[in-house]
Amino acid sequence: MSLIEAQAADQQDPLAKFCADFTMPDDVIYLDGNSLGPLPKSAQQRAREVVDNQWGNDLITSWNKHAWIDLPQLTGNKIARLIGADDGEVICCDSISVNLFKLLAIALQLNPGRKKILSQKDNFPTDLYITQGLNALVGENRCELMAVGAEDIEASLTDDVAVLLLTQVNFRTGHCHDMQEITARAHEKGIIVIWDLAHSTGVMPVDLNAWQVDFAVGCGYKFLNGGPGAPAFIFAAKKYHEQLSQPLSGWMGHKAPFDFSPDYEADPSIKQFLCGTPPIVSMSILDAAMDCFADVEVKDLHRKALGLADFFHKQLQVTGISSVLQRQTPEDDSIRGAQLSYSHPMAYAICQALIADGVIADFRAPDIIRFGFSPLFLSYEDMFKATQRLARIMENNTYKNPEFQIRGKVT
Amino acid sequence: MSLIEAQAADQQDPLAKFCADFTMPDDVIYLDGNSLGPLPKSAQQRAREVVDNQWGNDLITSWNKHAWIDLPQLTGNKIARLIGADDGEVICCDSISVNLFKLLAIALQLNPGRKKILSQKDNFPTDLYITQGLNALVGENRCELMAVGAEDIEASLTDDVAVLLLTQVNFRTGHCHDMQEITARAHEKGIIVIWDLAHSTGVMPVDLNAWQVDFAVGCGYKFLNGGPGAPAFIFAAKKYHEQLSQPLSGWMGHKAPFDFSPDYEADPSIKQFLCGTPPIVSMSILDAAMDCFADVEVKDLHRKALGLADFFHKQLQVTGISSVLQRQTPEDDSIRGAQLSYSHPMAYAICQALIADGVIADFRAPDIIRFGFSPLFLSYEDMFKATQRLARIMENNTYKNPEFQIRGKVT
Repeated sequence: MSLIEAQAADQQDPLAKFCADFTMPDDVIYLDGNSLGPLPKSAQQRAREVVDNQWGNDLITSWNKHAWIDLPQLTGNKIARLIGADDGEVICCDSISVNLFKLLAIALQLNPGRKKILSQKDNFPTDLYITQGLNALVGENRCELMAVGAEDIEASLTDDVAVLLLTQVNFRTGHCHDMQEITARAHEKGIIVIWDLAHSTGVMPVDLNAWQVDFAVGCGYKFLNGGPGAPAFIFAAKKYHEQLSQPLSGWMGHKAPFDFSPDYEADPSIKQFLCGTPPIVSMSILDAAMDCFADVEVKDLHRKALGLADFFHKQLQVTGISSVLQRQTPEDDSIRGAQLSYSHPMAYAICQALIADGVIADFRAPDIIRFGFSPLFLSYEDMFKATQRLARIMENNTYKNPEFQIRGKVT
Repeated sequence: MSLIEAQAADQQDPLAKFCADFTMPDDVIYLDGNSLGPLPKSAQQRAREVVDNQWGNDLITSWNKHAWIDLPQLTGNKIARLIGADDGEVICCDSISVNLFKLLAIALQLNPGRKKILSQKDNFPTDLYITQGLNALVGENRCELMAVGAEDIEASLTDDVAVLLLTQVNFRTGHCHDMQEITARAHEKGIIVIWDLAHSTGVMPVDLNAWQVDFAVGCGYKFLNGGPGAPAFIFAAKKYHEQLSQPLSGWMGHKAPFDFSPDYEADPSIKQFLCGTPPIVSMSILDAAMDCFADVEVKDLHRKALGLADFFHKQLQVTGISSVLQRQTPEDDSIRGAQLSYSHPMAYAICQALIADGVIADFRAPDIIRFGFSPLFLSYEDMFKATQRLARIMENNTYKNPEFQIRGKVT
C-alpha cells in the first residue's frame, strides 16, 4: 500500500525529472546528500573539460580563455540566486572555516568597543573553533566567545554583543532557526549577524537581503552537490563592500593582482574576500553542479525535502521503528531543515548495517543517525525502500553483528 | 649545428623519458611550467578515478574507503622527500597565502617580545600582503612588516627581528637566495625563519632539516604540476609540533574532529595545520602528479633545468637577441632558479607574439618576459625551436602588431 502511495507521489513530483541529472550506483539509496552530494552529470562532464582541455590543451592561457580568473564570482552569482542575494554579493572561495575567520574579524571591526561573539553551544564545532582561534590570536580584550544553549540565544542578544554567529539548520538535530526574526532582534541591539548556511543552501528558502542579513557563509559540497571538499562561499551585503578590510589579504583579493605592487589594496567588490589562488578544478566542478539548479525554485526543493522526510518518518511509524529510534528533529515544518535525526544507543552500528544494505545515512557522535533528504535526486519510492530495509535491520538485529561496530577514521 | 647539439643533449638526457608522462598539445613549447605545470597523465587518470568512481560510486564512504581523510598527509609526505623533510613534517592544505597567515602567527608566538617581520620588497606580493593583513588585525604593537631590498637583508638580521620571511627564488628575476647561509645568520639572532618555496619545490635542491629551517610553504601547481590552483603545503620542523597554536583552527586540525566537541584541541601532529574540509578532487590530482617524481632525484632535475636555461640563453646570444632582451637572471648557477627573465619595453607584446607562435612564456609587470625550465617535460630541442621562433619574432618585428598589445585580465 505504501509503495503504491510512494509511486503515486513520484508521479506527481515536478522535480522527479532531475533525478536523471545525477549518477548513482545501482540499488543505492543515498540519504547523505546533506554531507556529500552525489555526482551530477554536468559536473562529471566539466571535470573532463577542465582537466583534459582547459588545463591539458590550453594550459596557462585558460586563466583568460576559459575565464578561470572570474570563476569565483561566476559561481558565486549562481549561488546568490538560491539565497536571496544579488549578483556581486557572493563569492566562491576557501572553506567555511577560513571564510568565517575573515568575516568574524570584519564583524568585530564593524562593532568597535564590543568584543563578544555570541554563538550556540551545539553549533557545528568549526564555527566555535574558528572563534576560539581568532580569540587566541587577538586576545581576550578584543574577542570573547559566548556559546549558549539554543534556548538562551534570544535572551543573550544584549547591546554588548558584537557578533551573532549561528547556523540556520543544526547539523545534529535538524532544528532550524527563524533567521529573519533572530536577525531583526540582533539588529535592534546593534549586533552584526553572520549566518552559516551549510545545511541550508540549495534546499531551505533563504532570503538574505530581504531579511537584512549582514554576512553569511555556506558549503559547496552538501546540497549543492559540488564534490568532495568543494570550495565554500561568502555572502557580504553590498553596503559593507567599501568599508571592510579582511585579514586574509592574499593577492587574489587585491584590486590589481597582476600589477604585483608591494602594498595591499583591497578590491572594492566582493573579490576582496579572495585570498590565494583558487582550486580551479574543484571550483569548476561546483560551478557545473550549479547548473542543476538553473530551472528550479528553492521553495519547490524545500517542499519536496519536507515531503520526503514526512513520508520516511510515517513509514517508520507504520513499521513500528519510530518507537526504538527517538526522533530528534522537530515536527513543525517551520523549525526543521531537510534532514531527520534519530537517537539510538547503537546508532553507529545501525548506520553501518544500513550502508551495507545500500542505504547510505550517517552517524553523528554520540548517538545520532542522520538521514538527509536532498530533493533533486531522491524519490518517494526511495523512501519506501529505505525504511523497509531499516525496519528489516532493526527487526532482525542485524546491526548487532560485530562487523558493524568497527569504526573508520571518519564516522 | 645548434639543432644537432640539442638533439645530442637530448640523447644523453637521463630525464628525457619522463616527457612521455605528460600530455602536451602539438607544436607547443611550454616554458611556463613555473606558473602552471602541464597535465601529467597520472593526474588525468586520477581525476577520472576520483570523480567517476570515488565520488560517483563510493560517495561519502570514500572518506574511509579511499582514505580521503589521510590525503593531506599522504600528499605531504610525497612532497617532503623533495625538500629534505621527514614524513609527518609536511601537509598539503589551503593556499600559500592562507598558510603563511598560520605560520606568521605561530612565528610571532615563538618569539615573544619581538614584533618585526623582515621580508624583501620585491618578494612575491602575497607574502607581503598577508603580513600586512596580520599586522592590521593584531596591531602595530604586535606585528610590523619591514620590507627591505635584497642587498639589505643580511644587515637587517638584528636581534629585534621576530621572523624572517623570504622566497628562495625571486618570481621576477629568478635570483636565488642561499637558504642555508641566511637561515644560519638569522638563527644567530634568534629569528624564526619561514621560506616560501613557490619557485623551488620540485626543481631546486632544498634540504630543510639539514639547513635547520623552521617553517616553509610551497606551491602545488608550478613545478609539481598539480593542476590549476592545486592546494599548497606547509612544512613545520618536528620540534615545533607540540608547542604551537595556529589561529585558523578549523575542525580538520582538531585532534578528534569526529567527536564534534565544542572546544578546539589542536592535533599534536602536522595535521594541526589543517583548517576546513580539503578540496579532495584538486588535492587528488596533485597527489597523482607527485607520482612523476617517484623515481627522480631533485639534483638531476636541477641540473637539467640549468642546462636547458643555458642552452636557451646561448641560442639567444647566437641569434643576437640577447642584445635587445636584457637578462635579469644571474649567470652564477648558485644564485639562480629554474627560469630566465629578460626585460624589454615591449615584453608583454613579445610574450603574446610568442604564445601565438606556440611558445608559451609569461609576462611579469612592468617589463619582464619570463621563461621557465621545468625539467620533466622539456627537451633541448624545445629550447632550439623556442629560441628560433623568438628570434624570428624579434627580427620581423611581429610583436609590434597591435593585436599583441591587448591585455587580458590575467597577464
